[in-house]
Order: sequence, then C-alpha cells, then structure tokens
Amino acid sequence: MERNVARLRARLTALGVGLRPHLKTCKSVDVARRVMASPQGPATVSTLKEAAHFAAAGVRDMIYAVGIAPAKLDQVVALRAEGVDLAVLLDTVAQAEAVAAASRAVGQRIPALIEIDCDGHRSGVKPGDTERLLAIGHALAQGAELRGVLTHAGGSYAARGEQALRQCAEDERRGVVEAATALRAAGLPCPVVSLGSTPTAHSATDLTGVTEVRAGVFVFFDLVMAGIGVCQVEDIALSVLATVIGHQPDKGWLLIDAGWMAMSQDRGTAKQAVNQGYGVVCDLAGRPYPDLVVADANQEHGIVTLRPGSAGVMPDLAIGDRVRVLPNHACATGAQHRSYHVVRGTQVAIEAEWPRFGGW
Amino acid sequence: MERNVARLRARLTALGVGLRPHLKTCKSVDVARRVMASPQGPATVSTLKEAAHFAAAGVRDMIYAVGIAPAKLDQVVALRAEGVDLAVLLDTVAQAEAVAAASRAVGQRIPALIEIDCDGHRSGVKPGDTERLLAIGHALAQGAELRGVLTHAGGSYAARGEQALRQCAEDERRGVVEAATALRAAGLPCPVVSLGSTPTAHSATDLTGVTEVRAGVFVFFDLVMAGIGVCQVEDIALSVLATVIGHQPDKGWLLIDAGWMAMSQDRGTAKQAVNQGYGVVCDLAGRPYPDLVVADANQEHGIVTLRPGSAGVMPDLAIGDRVRVLPNHACATGAQHRSYHVVRGTQVAIEAEWPRFGGW
Repeated sequence: MERNVARLRARLTALGVGLRPHLKTCKSVDVARRVMASPQGPATVSTLKEAAHFAAAGVRDMIYAVGIAPAKLDQVVALRAEGVDLAVLLDTVAQAEAVAAASRAVGQRIPALIEIDCDGHRSGVKPGDTERLLAIGHALAQGAELRGVLTHAGGSYAARGEQALRQCAEDERRGVVEAATALRAAGLPCPVVSLGSTPTAHSATDLTGVTEVRAGVFVFFDLVMAGIGVCQVEDIALSVLATVIGHQPDKGWLLIDAGWMAMSQDRGTAKQAVNQGYGVVCDLAGRPYPDLVVADANQEHGIVTLRPGSAGVMPDLAIGDRVRVLPNHACATGAQHRSYHVVRGTQVAIEAEWPRFGGW
Repeated sequence: MERNVARLRARLTALGVGLRPHLKTCKSVDVARRVMASPQGPATVSTLKEAAHFAAAGVRDMIYAVGIAPAKLDQVVALRAEGVDLAVLLDTVAQAEAVAAASRAVGQRIPALIEIDCDGHRSGVKPGDTERLLAIGHALAQGAELRGVLTHAGGSYAARGEQALRQCAEDERRGVVEAATALRAAGLPCPVVSLGSTPTAHSATDLTGVTEVRAGVFVFFDLVMAGIGVCQVEDIALSVLATVIGHQPDKGWLLIDAGWMAMSQDRGTAKQAVNQGYGVVCDLAGRPYPDLVVADANQEHGIVTLRPGSAGVMPDLAIGDRVRVLPNHACATGAQHRSYHVVRGTQVAIEAEWPRFGGW
C-alpha cells in the first residue's frame, strides 16, 4: 500500500498536479491519513456518510462526487457549518436551482462542480453541450458558488493496452478542459478542473489545464487493475485470509471458508483476458498458486479449482490450512469487511487493525 | 415478511416437521425473533459471528452450517460453555478427528452433523458413500457427539418448473434419509435429519424421515425466488430506497443513487428467463414500474432504463423523486446495509429501525 501511494504521488508530482484521493475505496481514517497530502485533505467521497465520518476525523476539504439529491443539501450545509469545505456535484439545471435555493436559504454560497461526461459511460454534461453547461452555470450563479468542473473516465476500465489507456487519459483531459474553457469564455468562474480514475491517473502523459487528479483503487490495486495493466499482481495490497474447510477430490475441488460474502460478487475480470473467478489463491506470504483460482462461490464457501486448461496439480492443502485470496475489485471486497488487519510485506504477524465503515 | 413467515410455517406444520430458520439472510435479532419458533431458537447460522451475536440475544439452539475449521473449535467450545447448544458441520475424517480431540480436551461431547451432498453442488459426503460416512461417524465417536446428518439442495436454485422443484425436494429428502439409514444400520446414532433450501421447502410434498427443515431467504424472498416461481414479486419484503439524481435523455437513462454498493453485485437473475439487471424499480408503495429495470450499476450509481424490447415509455421521474428497488438476492443486498427501516405494507412511514450486523 505504501509503495502504491508513493508511486502515484511521484507520478502526479512529475505532471505538476495535486492528488485528491477517493476515499470510497478504503472507507478508513487510518488509510486515508496515509494517502491524503495532509490530515485535512483534500479528499473525494462517494457518500455523505463518508463525508461525515472523515469530517469527524479532521478532513476539511472534500468533494462529494456523486450527483447531489436536493434532500441531501441539509446535511451538506450542516457539515459545512462545522468548518468542512464540502463541495457537491451536479449535471442538471434542476440540481443547480436546488443548490442555489439552499444557498440563499442559509445565506452561504454552497460550492458545486459541474460533472462532465468525457466518455459517455455514466453521468455528466457532454463537453460540447455548451448550452446545458452555461444554463447550469447561470442557475448556480443565483446564490451558489460555481467551483469548477469534474469528470471521471470510467470507460478506461474497458481500455486494453498502453495506447488505449493514454487515449482515455487524453480524452478525459480534453473533455474537462474544453468544458472549463466554455464556462470561462462565458464569464463564469471555473477555478477547479478535476479529473481522474486509477487507469488514467497512471497513464496520462500531459495534464495541461487540470488542477487535480482523483483516484481511489490505486491505494490497494486489484485483479481488475492488474488485468488492465496498470499494476502487477504483486502490487495488490488487499487480500482475504481464508481456511481450507473441505475437499471434493472427485471433482478436483478444494473448499475454503471465504465465499462471496467475504470476496464480494464483483466479477470484473470475467470480461478481461484472464478470468480470475472470485479471486487468485495465494499462500500466507501472498505468493500466488499459479494454477489455482476461486472458480465459484456461495455465501460462505469458496470453491477452489485448477484453472481451466492448467496442466498443474492441486497443491497439498489440508483441512485447516490457510490461504490468502486476492480480490477482483478492492472497493467491493473491502466493503464486505469491518476492518483491515495490517501486515507488512510478506509477514504474517498483524501489526495493527484499522477499522472501516460502511452505510450511507 | 410476516406473510412469508406464516406461509412457510403453515406449510411445514402440514408436513409434520419443524423449521430451523437460517439467520444468515437477516443477520438481525429483530427479524430472527419473528421467524424462530421461540426466542431460544432453533436456528441455523453461517458464521460464528452470527452464532455469538444470536447467543447474546438469547438463542440457545443453533447449527453452524458451514464446514468447521479446526481453529474455530475454541470459539464453539466457549459459546457452548455459555449454555448454547451449538452444533458444528463436517464432511471429512480430518474434521471429525479434530472435533473428537477438542471434545476430549474439554471433557465435553461437541455435537456434530455430517454434511450430505444430495445434488453435487458443493460440499458433503455422497449419500451412497457409506465407507466415508461411517469413517466420519466412527471418528466422531472417539469423544464427540454424532448429532445427525444435514443437507442443502443448493442445486434447486437452478431448477425450473414445479415438477423439477418437487424432484429436487425429493432428491434432497431421499439423500439425507439414505445417509441417516446407513449410519443407524451401522449402530451409530442419528437423531437429527436436517434438510432445506427455500425452493425445496416450498416444493416438498413428503418429508418422511426428516426431523427439521432449514430455509433462509423465504423470510424476505427476492427476484431470484420469484424467477424460480416459489414467490410472486409482490411477496418480496425487502427493497432499497433510492433517489433520482440524474437523466441522460439521449440514452434513455435515469440515474439513481443506489449502485452496486446498495444493491450488491448479485446478478442471480441473469441466468433466469427474465434478467432483472440489478433490480426492479418500484414506486414508494412498492408497485413495480413494469417497463423499468436497473440495467447497470457503478459503486453509488444505478442506471435505470426501459427493459430491452419494452414498448413502454420512461415514467416522469424528476430529480429528487424516490423509488424502491427490489433485489435479486435478499441475503446479498441486506448485507450491504446496517439496518432495516421497517414499513407496513404499502405505507411509507417508518415504524421501526432494526439493526443488522456483518463480519465474521
């Protein structure tokens, strides 16, 4: 984890932009403090529960990077009253009007960023849709603060190869900078130009016009990121410790006590070149068994088999033996657990337990 | 929920067997008390965390229905020392020897059931594998208590149609009774003959030789169960309340603030006749919008679209409007939340908040 954090920091320093880490991956104050530039932030969150939890731990600069529902503005205002510079995100005039109205009601300009849709994968205003962009900007101007523009190249998760990743990163940059330029050309402010995803943060070669990068899963990495090529399997800093609880030798199955409740049901590698099932099986030191995969999972059972086409043999793992399983998706797997048991490198000894939280 | 519980109770009473509900679905003391025959149980659990949590709430009769890892026996012994009749499950001689050794060490016969594999879907001894069955029974006899046999027709989730479901139920019954008969013929005790899954519990027509039925998801039901045909969509007693946070009209998308973190990534209906995506969208009273489905999901975003081939039109849902989403799998979706907000029928008012727990 420390190496992963240092790697992205060094990269962004070289590109001349700051990091606003997305804390939805870790949902842990202990991890957050190791990934943020300072204990006060900056940071990105995906729920108001995260905003409140990290605010209570002293984080003072956050963007709630999911489109705001008007009914949530009361809680945003309450957090801001505690001294937290919490900004919201939106992509419709209706939301902008709600934020402006709430701002007027409390006599305080609530900061909002306009979400830009750089790759059509989810939400946001198309960079070239100047009409909608300016309508939102002008609606915000009626009491709220237009803080800037924000985009997320979620489509980069489907990119394959260095060239495609660099193209995603450049499309992400061009889209959000184009939107910022349009706002400024219309006389509207746009101090913040925010973009990011772990694949593009690790692929961008030029971030001209960008003020900050957001990324989340880079802190732990996972099999999806390894499949995309932005990390190696040995960089993955999160695993689930499991115990062998059965064998079905006629089927070549080994059963472990980590099913989808422990691993999550994320099957993000199913569409990649190497389908990693529900996870990669390692020894206690984190060294993968190259021929094994968690091929299937029930709620509390994982079914470990040889990989399809493998010429290997099942290692001699007896009832009670322990293994580590690397996850497809660190955000999803982490969310199934109440804390992190911290180990250093290939050590087995637990150095610390870091609580994590969930909910909304 | 109350109707679902009453329905299965009435069914099993008519068949002359008791219900040992599986509390892994609810992980809630409030729900457990409404589904168990008495506040003391009986009950089934899938983790020792559940066993400890329900023990603290007064449950005194539990089966931990996942193959035991020897390292967990200390905790089993500790719970039993508190007066909880907690039985373990196993399907290997190695586990039986570990349970017998632990029993001798504490001077107390730890009760164990032998898991029977009635349909080849996961773990357990094949009913006809008398050699392995008796070897486990004899190993247990060296200090432990052979409490009986237990099976789970997990394969019933893939059955389609009433006749196939009845066949699964009969195969489940025949398999576990055959194993009990073999143990008794060898002079070994087998007081408990336990089987169950929600599909077979609702399909069995004869449970001769069976002493108890286990089922979990029947308490809430879900879209997978509706797809199998053991409930109607209107029986589903669990939904996720979400808010509209965006539109992408050119794509026919409506965005809600419930993504896979709120719904889970269970896609259990993907292999059924009707693929329900990440869930069925309803109004606040729980009435489904027949043409809508949560077609895709990110961590905190759900993408709602018209169903493929639908001739309907997108209902007029504005920013801030709220919907309920019915889940594919109640166990998985429930696990993403910290409590249940209880409503009565089609009412919107929250009558109570019931905490739920997770972890191991």
